[in-house]
Amino acid sequence: MAGDRTLRLQHGNRIQALCVLGTHITTDLYGAAPAGTVSFSVKHTEGVSVEVVSQGQAEVGAAPGSGTQWPLEEGTLLRFSMNQASTEVNDNKVTVSFYAEGGQHINQAGVFLTGMGISLDVDADQDGVVEKNSPNKASWTWGPEGHGAILLVSCNKESPFTPASDSNDERVFNKEDLLDMSRMVLRIEGPQRVPRGYEIVLYVPVSSADKIGVFHVQNPFFGQRYVHVLGQRKLYHVVQYTGGAAELEFFIEGLHFPDDSFSGLVSIHASLLETLAEGVPPTPVFTDTVVLRVAPWIMMPNTLAPVNIFVCSLKDNYLFIKEIKNLVNKAGCELKVCFGYTNRGDRWMQDEIEFGYTHAPHKSFPVVLDSPRGGGLEQLAIRELLGPDFGYVSREPLFEATTSLDSFGNLEVSPPVTVAGKEYPLGRILIGSSFPTSGGRRMTRLVRDFLYAQQVQAPVELYSDWLSMGQVNEFVTFVPTSDTKGFRMLMASPVACYKLFREKQKEGQGEATMFKGKGGQRDTKRVTINKVLSNDILVQQNQYVQRCIDWNRDILKKELGLTEKDIIDLPALFKLDKHGKAVPYFPNMVTMIVLAKDLGIPKPFGPLLGGECCLERQTRSLLEPLGLRCCFLEDVACYHGRLGEVRCGTNVQRRPFAFKWWHVTP
Amino acid sequence: MAGDRTLRLQHGNRIQALCVLGTHITTDLYGAAPAGTVSFSVKHTEGVSVEVVSQGQAEVGAAPGSGTQWPLEEGTLLRFSMNQASTEVNDNKVTVSFYAEGGQHINQAGVFLTGMGISLDVDADQDGVVEKNSPNKASWTWGPEGHGAILLVSCNKESPFTPASDSNDERVFNKEDLLDMSRMVLRIEGPQRVPRGYEIVLYVPVSSADKIGVFHVQNPFFGQRYVHVLGQRKLYHVVQYTGGAAELEFFIEGLHFPDDSFSGLVSIHASLLETLAEGVPPTPVFTDTVVLRVAPWIMMPNTLAPVNIFVCSLKDNYLFIKEIKNLVNKAGCELKVCFGYTNRGDRWMQDEIEFGYTHAPHKSFPVVLDSPRGGGLEQLAIRELLGPDFGYVSREPLFEATTSLDSFGNLEVSPPVTVAGKEYPLGRILIGSSFPTSGGRRMTRLVRDFLYAQQVQAPVELYSDWLSMGQVNEFVTFVPTSDTKGFRMLMASPVACYKLFREKQKEGQGEATMFKGKGGQRDTKRVTINKVLSNDILVQQNQYVQRCIDWNRDILKKELGLTEKDIIDLPALFKLDKHGKAVPYFPNMVTMIVLAKDLGIPKPFGPLLGGECCLERQTRSLLEPLGLRCCFLEDVACYHGRLGEVRCGTNVQRRPFAFKWWHVTP
Repeated sequence: MAGDRTLRLQHGNRIQALCVLGTHITTDLYGAAPAGTVSFSVKHTEGVSVEVVSQGQAEVGAAPGSGTQWPLEEGTLLRFSMNQASTEVNDNKVTVSFYAEGGQHINQAGVFLTGMGISLDVDADQDGVVEKNSPNKASWTWGPEGHGAILLVSCNKESPFTPASDSNDERVFNKEDLLDMSRMVLRIEGPQRVPRGYEIVLYVPVSSADKIGVFHVQNPFFGQRYVHVLGQRKLYHVVQYTGGAAELEFFIEGLHFPDDSFSGLVSIHASLLETLAEGVPPTPVFTDTVVLRVAPWIMMPNTLAPVNIFVCSLKDNYLFIKEIKNLVNKAGCELKVCFGYTNRGDRWMQDEIEFGYTHAPHKSFPVVLDSPRGGGLEQLAIRELLGPDFGYVSREPLFEATTSLDSFGNLEVSPPVTVAGKEYPLGRILIGSSFPTSGGRRMTRLVRDFLYAQQVQAPVELYSDWLSMGQVNEFVTFVPTSDTKGFRMLMASPVACYKLFREKQKEGQGEATMFKGKGGQRDTKRVTINKVLSNDILVQQNQYVQRCIDWNRDILKKELGLTEKDIIDLPALFKLDKHGKAVPYFPNMVTMIVLAKDLGIPKPFGPLLGGECCLERQTRSLLEPLGLRCCFLEDVACYHGRLGEVRCGTNVQRRPFAFKWWHVTP
Repeated sequence: MAGDRTLRLQHGNRIQALCVLGTHITTDLYGAAPAGTVSFSVKHTEGVSVEVVSQGQAEVGAAPGSGTQWPLEEGTLLRFSMNQASTEVNDNKVTVSFYAEGGQHINQAGVFLTGMGISLDVDADQDGVVEKNSPNKASWTWGPEGHGAILLVSCNKESPFTPASDSNDERVFNKEDLLDMSRMVLRIEGPQRVPRGYEIVLYVPVSSADKIGVFHVQNPFFGQRYVHVLGQRKLYHVVQYTGGAAELEFFIEGLHFPDDSFSGLVSIHASLLETLAEGVPPTPVFTDTVVLRVAPWIMMPNTLAPVNIFVCSLKDNYLFIKEIKNLVNKAGCELKVCFGYTNRGDRWMQDEIEFGYTHAPHKSFPVVLDSPRGGGLEQLAIRELLGPDFGYVSREPLFEATTSLDSFGNLEVSPPVTVAGKEYPLGRILIGSSFPTSGGRRMTRLVRDFLYAQQVQAPVELYSDWLSMGQVNEFVTFVPTSDTKGFRMLMASPVACYKLFREKQKEGQGEATMFKGKGGQRDTKRVTINKVLSNDILVQQNQYVQRCIDWNRDILKKELGLTEKDIIDLPALFKLDKHGKAVPYFPNMVTMIVLAKDLGIPKPFGPLLGGECCLERQTRSLLEPLGLRCCFLEDVACYHGRLGEVRCGTNVQRRPFAFKWWHVTP
């Protein structure tokens, strides 16, 4: 709301002014009065409310228009307003009469008033419907008691590379195109004929201009036309208003997700401009403002229901796809296979894309984040996914080379947690990184900045650079449970593996053999429990690995508010390659695909005891009591040998959160 | 403070670990116990505090070391800490014994502990002295109840273009150099001999690295040497620590003021790194963090006491300098004259520089902001002002052309105000701009962003583009008063001038002449009150100008919490040039120099009535009752004719605020 507006009266003159409903005009009577004035009286038409302000206080009691004479002192002001629009120009007025000592009338000053209502309106209470002049429309606050209009980024086009509609002034949309956009209404009430020298202008500040597009609806006889009126180079738009009551409809699209240089907030203004005379520039009389926030990109944790599972079909993974299909059917989901012409030999479905979504009170649609990793799958998102109901976003560094930490096996999100009283109802993003002192790899800055800028899933940086592939999904995952907590965090655990092997060795099972049936994978000598336990270098390397994993355990406990009972340790072993980076020694079970209660776990090929793999048995004993069903999938040939596991070759699109992101308090 | 640290015990083994004072180590007993264990007991040396944690709760009652046997359940943890540093490596220990059903001793697990204290300390309570391990050192909060260490930008060098000390590893400073820097102490307590495989590292995150320089003090026999150890390319520094108790002293300088991409916050970390064995990389065991905020650049309003007045000496302003000198002497200040070789014909002292200062608990010094306007005076700040006790900062756009709105006549600051309950104890910056719809001029974005980023004098954007020179000091200024309010805001007022002239005309003085003695300035016909009042075009142009000024009046009332009685209107008249931009019609009195009670006001050469200028008389009658002394200075030839006034040709360096900026709540 604007403050009071100053108007100058002049004794001996009657000026004209426009009074915008809901605002006050203040005029300095002392300055307007002729010399010798000691008192004044006020007359006004019914449509104007007037008060006399003396010594900074409004005078109560006798109504100004009643013919009372008031003493004129320095600082005496008149303050007036109108609350109904005029039907004709200058159909209201205020007249002030000035009197000398003794009551003699000296002169008078007056103003003809035209009342106009102007309100730029949006859906500030976030219920999907535009209100009338909400007091909350010019600000934005988070939380369940918050308010503020919301914009969706229109990233669901035919091609992400269509330039924003600057060159294309007239576009014919159908109703569906507009469903994504946020509605804005400019309501104007005024006299039948607009007074001369006034115009209404919609405009955006430069900082918002490249972030939005505003379209105006015109209804010619055939079809509806939507003209681009604001955004990009168009900073302002003169509104076509010819008088009377009008409701002009606009639709707004976002052009950018929040980022390190863009908080997500944009503003649009409507100003009433007044031009006094030829040759003098216009000045604003009244400005109304609306603020909108661009909806963020949101990720979906393993605790949300799976819908579609994506996998690449290659020359060598026919059997794997068969196994995945069984699992997917069991889980009641749909399998989407990506074939050679799209995958071009690249199997790492998990790494190329991350499924997310965006959400406004009026609409919601899935949005895929495309990794800058640049493998064969880089066309996947654009070719197969992007469409009218599926958005796309990417962040590609211009100069920085990408590493395996830019693959999205290194981008995960936790289930909803509460940490020391602070709630994260959409969970927290997990990103793997390196220690600052090591000069190691990190996720590329553009993507990292993008993730932090979404705000609603406050990221946690973990330590993953100790791994050759350097990805968080190699040591942590989450599975849904039906108890109060709702989930467990699973961690790869060398300690758990050594504990298990030592127990088995003590029970006399030291000669049980690993990798049965996969003889070609390791050296031709048999790998037994005894051999593993007596390998001092392997022991030492896994002590180091355990420290690295424990460092992350401690961070996760602190940043997700977890205790030991929320964590389950799955036996795992690693070895260090010649660069000192860790790779799994046997298929890494924690790198699994989670389809609600059905888990697709890399078959570990652990020591067989009584015909059963003791690692599988241990894992079942940890997870089945939670109601989870373990399905061990053979991925050695086509994934593990290439330093990836089941999860790396698949990607799950899930149902979005019901929880509204604007109720988060970041 | 870090959370708990996970440690892995192993039955049948005794490991070694380092325990940092003030942290807790947690170990999973269930995971460490051999098969068949049903209970355990704990022994420990006196230097270790131990608690048993069962079902997430610490067990009270029997002390763990008392030989009690505890039941072993899943999730049973041991949690321990040390509160005194060890004198020798491994001089403390914890031993856990495991028992089978029936009490038979199966095995035990132990850990040798070395206690070490590590604390990275700064002056977090802002009293000029570094504390010991303040709980507030890793965060920063505003306000009188706030906390957090403060850094000064070392912008007071010989030349601002010396590259930050990256190439210069060893610099010999004197004590004064260090007085500007913020002190940091790394306190370490440990055994006489440091255990193998440990080192302590100081480091900065990449985001802070180019914002600070950290120097370490070494004291050789002759002189003190300060080595640059962190900042710029140096991301980490291995601390030379050989054991025992040590206090390592560091000094920190800031390299950048806050800006649109830099909030002003930096962090430094000290980590204890542990290397398990040859060939495995180190992992951090403990990290301590300090956060510091770079002190902002602060401007000084007219209500602060003047100290030095700067003016340029040119061929044509000898008389003006004489007048200024008299005024300056009267006000008890010092006049600094800038001569030709520095001013190079550029007289606009107000426009080239803005005096400000920066301030930390331990030190404060003036800092000049150099405008990017690029006139003859551009060398002034560096040549004449910059020095060991005088800092320099500038923001030069690379591509954007500058306009007259980038001159610092367009940069002012209000006195301290309170607005609807929110306090601005250092006042608010005022910047002149244009209306968004006009495509007009604005202050260049780099400087604007810089000013907003300082935070403590939250800027207000005014409308000045209607003026040819487009500077706020052409229509507003502030003068100090000795009442509760402390100041008045003076505004240029065409309405006040017309009111005065009409009164004089009514009194029969219509033929009084303006510009007496300045005949060459206007056309040779006399300019009388009657002529001015009958000039309809001038009337119309000044109505437009009044609207522009009133627009600013309304903003200033709202944003500075002012009412009409805080404002004084000085008579002024303008005319529009051929571009429709306003220039003063007679010397613009509001563009004055304020030296406490002594005001140097442009002599208006208004209509002479009884030998006295009625504009001067009016101004005196408005200001003298407030205890102010009006001195009218002739500036027509050398300033007004060039579209500037007294103030534009001078610049005042004032005493800084006593109020501490860190007590502001932005």
